[in-house]
Amino acid sequence: KAFCQRIVGMPYFDHFIIALILLNSLVLGLETSSFLTSHFENWFYWIHKIILAFFIIEALIKITAVAPQWNRYFGNGWNLFDFSIIILSLIPMTGQFAMIARLVRLLRILRLVSTIPELRLIVTTLIRSIPSMGHILVLSGILFYIYGILGYHLFHQHDPELWGSFGLSLLTLFRVITLEDWTDVMYVAMELSPWAWTYFVSFVIIGTFVVINLFIAVVLNNLQD
Amino acid sequence: KAFCQRIVGMPYFDHFIIALILLNSLVLGLETSSFLTSHFENWFYWIHKIILAFFIIEALIKITAVAPQWNRYFGNGWNLFDFSIIILSLIPMTGQFAMIARLVRLLRILRLVSTIPELRLIVTTLIRSIPSMGHILVLSGILFYIYGILGYHLFHQHDPELWGSFGLSLLTLFRVITLEDWTDVMYVAMELSPWAWTYFVSFVIIGTFVVINLFIAVVLNNLQD
Amino acid sequence: KAFCQRIVGMPYFDHFIIALILLNSLVLGLETSSFLTSHFENWFYWIHKIILAFFIIEALIKITAVAPQWNRYFGNGWNLFDFSIIILSLIPMTGQFAMIARLVRLLRILRLVSTIPELRLIVTTLIRSIPSMGHILVLSGILFYIYGILGYHLFHQHDPELWGSFGLSLLTLFRVITLEDWTDVMYVAMELSPWAWTYFVSFVIIGTFVVINLFIAVVLNNLQD
Amino acid sequence: KAFCQRIVGMPYFDHFIIALILLNSLVLGLETSSFLTSHFENWFYWIHKIILAFFIIEALIKITAVAPQWNRYFGNGWNLFDFSIIILSLIPMTGQFAMIARLVRLLRILRLVSTIPELRLIVTTLIRSIPSMGHILVLSGILFYIYGILGYHLFHQHDPELWGSFGLSLLTLFRVITLEDWTDVMYVAMELSPWAWTYFVSFVIIGTFVVINLFIAVVLNNLQD
Ligand code: NA
Ligand code: NA
Repeated sequence: KAFCQRIVGMPYFDHFIIALILLNSLVLGLETSSFLTSHFENWFYWIHKIILAFFIIEALIKITAVAPQWNRYFGNGWNLFDFSIIILSLIPMTGQFAMIARLVRLLRILRLVSTIPELRLIVTTLIRSIPSMGHILVLSGILFYIYGILGYHLFHQHDPELWGSFGLSLLTLFRVITLEDWTDVMYVAMELSPWAWTYFVSFVIIGTFVVINLFIAVVLNNLQD
Repeated sequence: KAFCQRIVGMPYFDHFIIALILLNSLVLGLETSSFLTSHFENWFYWIHKIILAFFIIEALIKITAVAPQWNRYFGNGWNLFDFSIIILSLIPMTGQFAMIARLVRLLRILRLVSTIPELRLIVTTLIRSIPSMGHILVLSGILFYIYGILGYHLFHQHDPELWGSFGLSLLTLFRVITLEDWTDVMYVAMELSPWAWTYFVSFVIIGTFVVINLFIAVVLNNLQD
Repeated sequence: KAFCQRIVGMPYFDHFIIALILLNSLVLGLETSSFLTSHFENWFYWIHKIILAFFIIEALIKITAVAPQWNRYFGNGWNLFDFSIIILSLIPMTGQFAMIARLVRLLRILRLVSTIPELRLIVTTLIRSIPSMGHILVLSGILFYIYGILGYHLFHQHDPELWGSFGLSLLTLFRVITLEDWTDVMYVAMELSPWAWTYFVSFVIIGTFVVINLFIAVVLNNLQD
Repeated sequence: KAFCQRIVGMPYFDHFIIALILLNSLVLGLETSSFLTSHFENWFYWIHKIILAFFIIEALIKITAVAPQWNRYFGNGWNLFDFSIIILSLIPMTGQFAMIARLVRLLRILRLVSTIPELRLIVTTLIRSIPSMGHILVLSGILFYIYGILGYHLFHQHDPELWGSFGLSLLTLFRVITLEDWTDVMYVAMELSPWAWTYFVSFVIIGTFVVINLFIAVVLNNLQD
């Protein structure tokens, strides 16, 4: 146990893990090249295996170092995240879960965040600033819900591709709030009724106003720190 | 009366009302599914009726609790809003006002805002920040008015779909200020005169500058609180 | 003279002028309706004449009130603006300057800004905040100039509609910086060379970065007041 | 040497250099006109030569003025920039490096920044604010990397034009984060799977959130100065 504690305390330990994650990320990037994949498939396969092995060893060392106070390891969200990635990595790459196994490999890149303290701090700060936006998020939710139902009832027969279901209506509204070709949506709706612009212009104005206030909430939250 | 006051003071009272509004919102959402609507139309119909009945009872209890100082109920904008929704809900769903009756049902979701104190506060703050933008809004109005008349006279013969009337011109200008495919509008206008870009570029620059100052007004207003 | 001073000092004087400008603006708005223009052309004609007459009388009263210290009238930018509008309004509506005469009528709406003190203050503030952005504007100018010349040389043969001259290149760059369908421009350029994306992505990143700092300059300037 | 120091200290020295750079910029602008280029090609050629000669003289004077403490000249980034432009300007305009030689001429306009102290200050400030965004930039990098690999694997067969390689995927993601016609990309992907919207909506939300925090980092950094 003392040996494990000494290892965890060594600066090289973290550097080695970061190097492993970077290698892992690099391999994942190289795998997007069909040329490289066809020539080095075995290499990539074994690198993934070896990196996984090191991740398991790392987790074991860290757990041993704090034993038997398990919650000093499992009580930390970032350690839990590392641990889940190992567990999920044991899913076989073949069969019906192959897609998930691929995704888990990708999530290993996120271990950069959990291992580098500065990134961990910044993500923790970002996540902690979400509650400060809580009420405005609920308000946006209500706004989307009302306009979504209204939009569905008004336009789903005329323009089923964009308003054909409640879900599609919400997606279309999200598009409108990013100001992405929102007038195309409006002009189609205005064929139905020349007053359809009121629906869109009001949503753009109210939506933008709410989003700006969301930004202000984030800024004020950051300014206080 | 004392009984009514006791009920209003109970925390369960508000929770029950919020649960009712959430149920109402859920039903309105489910009604966007034609499958569910055709199978549970009667259920939905009765749920709406029952919720309306509870809303009436709620209003009566609240009014009785403050009787005979009526303006303690009716002097509050949020109570007035709740009361108007009840009155408007009595419009029959059939006949020529069916559309309005549908809309009123949708507005009941907004009762979430009037019932949850935190949301009520945030909306009150948002609405109160509008006057601080007053003069810049008037300025934007003047900007739209001048460019609207000018745009109508310059382009309404060449591109009647976007500039065919003063109203359409204002809508097109609103589109331009959201930077939504504004160059498409400009390129059509530039067929008429190669100098048409001055109209659009100047409007984009002045408009964006005014909008930024509008945002600053909102931010400064929030920072002072 | 004392009579003129008394008139200028009366609150009704300004209110009457504002009412005149609003009437003028209303008539200009109504003139966008071809129906109204064909039926009430004479009315509109005479209203414009009468309003102009009142504006001349207003200027004469204000000038008389400060006589013979002319520069107490002409030394004020807003008065100069009012005076120029009167002079330019004397251009005949027929003949080759008809277009300018129409434009001058439109500019009369801007007298709302010069007459209402609150708007005058806000516009003065906006204009005064321009120098604080001076150096960043020069920097943006250099950025546009370099990318404009480069873009012209790279793309003017392949895509003459967007890059056919230095002026067109600047217009296209302005479009790119508003993020308006900038990928359409890029994809055409990438037919020429797969490396064309470096030109666009670097311009978007540097441009956005400079624009954000422009905004910050405006915000900081407003925060100091 | 004393003579050189006196020249460098004269205000006219800088003014003369700025005038030269402006003349250079003007000529580069005029060269975008094929009419002017065909008529004044010789003039433009000699003006470039003469300006280059003056730049060399300027550098020699400045270096002599500090001799033999060379690093008082070469230790300054801006002087190094001026010096590199001179060296690169000696590349012949013909042959395989013609393109680079053209680019170097264009970069001479940037000497405006290195010669005018106010612009030098502003650019130094902009560049110095980059490290304060460092960690968020790394975070954006990780975000792009993960979504890039994922997007490549998901969509490269269905939509090879936008997702055909890892590089193209990153370019498409950059487009999505500028909100530029991002729904067009999404609708094509949704033909493959109706769940593709999760990929895009999550990227837009997380990406926008990270970009906003990038802006806040810049603003906070500027506010502290
Ligand atoms: Na856009
Ligand atoms: Na667009």
